[in-house]
Amino acid sequence: MLQTKLFTRTKKEAPSDEVSKNAKLLIKAGFIHKEMAGVYSFLPLGLRVLKKIENIIREEMNAIGGQEVSMSVLQDKNLWEKTDRWEDQKVDAWFKTKLKSGTELGLGFTHEEPLTVIMKSFISSYRDLPKYVYQFQNKFRNETRAKSGLLRGREFLMKDLYSFHESEDDMLNYYDKTKDAYFKIFNRCGLDAIYTKAAGGAFTASYTHEFQVVAPVGEDTIFVCDQCRYAENKEISNLKEGDSCPLCKGKIKKEKSIEVGNIFPLGTKYSEPIGLTYKTEGGEERRVVMGSYGIGLPRLMATVVEVFSDERGIVWPESIAPFSIHVLVLGEDGEVFKKADKIYEDLQNKGIEVLYDDRHDISAGEKFADADLIGLPYRVVISERSLKEGGVEIKKRTEEKGKIINVDELMNLLVPRT
Amino acid sequence: MLQTKLFTRTKKEAPSDEVSKNAKLLIKAGFIHKEMAGVYSFLPLGLRVLKKIENIIREEMNAIGGQEVSMSVLQDKNLWEKTDRWEDQKVDAWFKTKLKSGTELGLGFTHEEPLTVIMKSFISSYRDLPKYVYQFQNKFRNETRAKSGLLRGREFLMKDLYSFHESEDDMLNYYDKTKDAYFKIFNRCGLDAIYTKAAGGAFTASYTHEFQVVAPVGEDTIFVCDQCRYAENKEISNLKEGDSCPLCKGKIKKEKSIEVGNIFPLGTKYSEPIGLTYKTEGGEERRVVMGSYGIGLPRLMATVVEVFSDERGIVWPESIAPFSIHVLVLGEDGEVFKKADKIYEDLQNKGIEVLYDDRHDISAGEKFADADLIGLPYRVVISERSLKEGGVEIKKRTEEKGKIINVDELMNLLVPRT
Repeated sequence: MLQTKLFTRTKKEAPSDEVSKNAKLLIKAGFIHKEMAGVYSFLPLGLRVLKKIENIIREEMNAIGGQEVSMSVLQDKNLWEKTDRWEDQKVDAWFKTKLKSGTELGLGFTHEEPLTVIMKSFISSYRDLPKYVYQFQNKFRNETRAKSGLLRGREFLMKDLYSFHESEDDMLNYYDKTKDAYFKIFNRCGLDAIYTKAAGGAFTASYTHEFQVVAPVGEDTIFVCDQCRYAENKEISNLKEGDSCPLCKGKIKKEKSIEVGNIFPLGTKYSEPIGLTYKTEGGEERRVVMGSYGIGLPRLMATVVEVFSDERGIVWPESIAPFSIHVLVLGEDGEVFKKADKIYEDLQNKGIEVLYDDRHDISAGEKFADADLIGLPYRVVISERSLKEGGVEIKKRTEEKGKIINVDELMNLLVPRT
Repeated sequence: MLQTKLFTRTKKEAPSDEVSKNAKLLIKAGFIHKEMAGVYSFLPLGLRVLKKIENIIREEMNAIGGQEVSMSVLQDKNLWEKTDRWEDQKVDAWFKTKLKSGTELGLGFTHEEPLTVIMKSFISSYRDLPKYVYQFQNKFRNETRAKSGLLRGREFLMKDLYSFHESEDDMLNYYDKTKDAYFKIFNRCGLDAIYTKAAGGAFTASYTHEFQVVAPVGEDTIFVCDQCRYAENKEISNLKEGDSCPLCKGKIKKEKSIEVGNIFPLGTKYSEPIGLTYKTEGGEERRVVMGSYGIGLPRLMATVVEVFSDERGIVWPESIAPFSIHVLVLGEDGEVFKKADKIYEDLQNKGIEVLYDDRHDISAGEKFADADLIGLPYRVVISERSLKEGGVEIKKRTEEKGKIINVDELMNLLVPRT
């Protein structure tokens, strides 16, 4: 994409009420726009990142048999009364609204209830099980505090997967598969997540699990083994810093961390009040056993920004960068621009995703500063000097110094995104 | 996809309160689930159709320079007061909600206001113009009557494009480009849309334009020339059935129709109160001239169902069908199943999108009825008889009778979706 066409520009400052690093950087780099506390719009660069994360998650959900749907935001009060999750005293995150007739509606903060109703139409026998259903849909949560940028949104895109099983054993088996899929997702996004035992909460009597990424800004505290990575959330843990690991010889460390995903064994908590049952091979009627599995996409994106950034800007992993290469042309020489235009076109034709800073009347320093702030994995500079030295100057965002390579080498450096 | 894996099934009946043909057929065929009047969830088959429509629209929006964003659902009251569109007396379609602090918020029924604010950050000079920005986002409209299925939703996915210009002339020039893009979109979805002059309404003093598809269920009435297709919405027309066309020798006909898209010249209606201005080359400050351009995706899908269906079910155009081919295996013979499995795999490997009815213990009649209801463009039957006759029986959904072709012919019949 030509930077002269892109409608966003970098900014010197984020809004004064924005205190989080992730939102400050993303706003200054032109990825998002703040609508109000905890509510952000995604601009072209930000939406590209979000879509890449979405595609990675979709691939991994499909790989474990997930079928994609899209449920509604508007929710029927009667349904949530059945599971005792309607009253504000029970669930304090509701946004509520009304039809003109006065009928109260809620904005979905999760989707166990409506999906369980949908599955009643399609599950009646053991032959219909197991089933795995997921969606990408906006969730609405009426958070009192929303000062962490994309880490805690009042409106945010979530991937939520729900599984339906004959038995607890079958559910736990799929629970482990989902765990593996989640590790793949976080790894592909460049994150090192720690599988952490956590409280059951409102969902289940037993434990749940969280995927935690160590970061000073994190709202969670975990105790994690420095050897085998066994971890417990502080909320349920009897461990303390310096303890021996209960599983190996390692030492327990205390860390601040961000929860980037969670998985819940739901048991029959929703199938019971809603009446989702199936007939066994012997004709016996049983309740369907469920699990649910969530990832908030903007939070994942914000975690990447918190973990991968420096004083100059964001440092995107290649897998979710909005473009792979930032091509910068320096000076005002018409011949240099012509060569840069050609390189941009050739890279595009190869299927490489390129942002091309083709702006005139902008100093080299400003172009470098913008490239560092936006944070694409590779920066390629084309200038009179680089051409004299035999080609283009290439530098990874993670490197301090660039090197000159010729144009053929550049063309063979990257493989197109599939 | 294997039909034994697909979690949906066809149903004998739609809910008794569902009166529209489009929703009845889509519910019976397992494409959507009714949450409440005017609110539907999209199941795997329905979501596939919606995504295909979305991709067609995205391609045509990108082709006319559109840059994709995603704005928030939650809307700030203060902003909408500036344009005098907050009060229920002014805009009767709002769903409203509240933060815990008591601050009122709205759920976006359109997005002119927030986008105009965003563009204030990025437009200051004539050099920043023109710009074209679009999104796919859920719109919320508190409709009193919502009995038309997907034709009139309280919550629905919309593509909304907004354009920003130096002058009325430049805007009208782009308005024509969008008109052409819209014709391409509707044509690619199999619809024959009529460009219709309509009332300016709340948006503009002058005329706007609608794209209307003739259908008995339509809530609109248009007068359209049987020769040159010049058309006016009854709301603003002085024409009547049988009149001579004002532009050619044709005769005017009166038709019921569905509005599948609309385009509005907005002028400075939003840039003025929000203060979106730019400096001309001469340094003069002027208001940015805007246009807006909408397509409701579920309504487009519903229009296709209303127009292309028969007493047996839906008849999807190839471009937006959830799969291209429905492969049916008949009988219980293991050898026949093996051959059918192989054909399914070979088609999949060629990149053809196939739904494979691999169910056992279902009669041929039931499989045929399901295939007709779901309405994929091609039905391929594999049975002992077809194999004896030299291959498979292929039939288009639009044809009454199938014919036997050999497997090689089948493999070369369809090209993969790109």
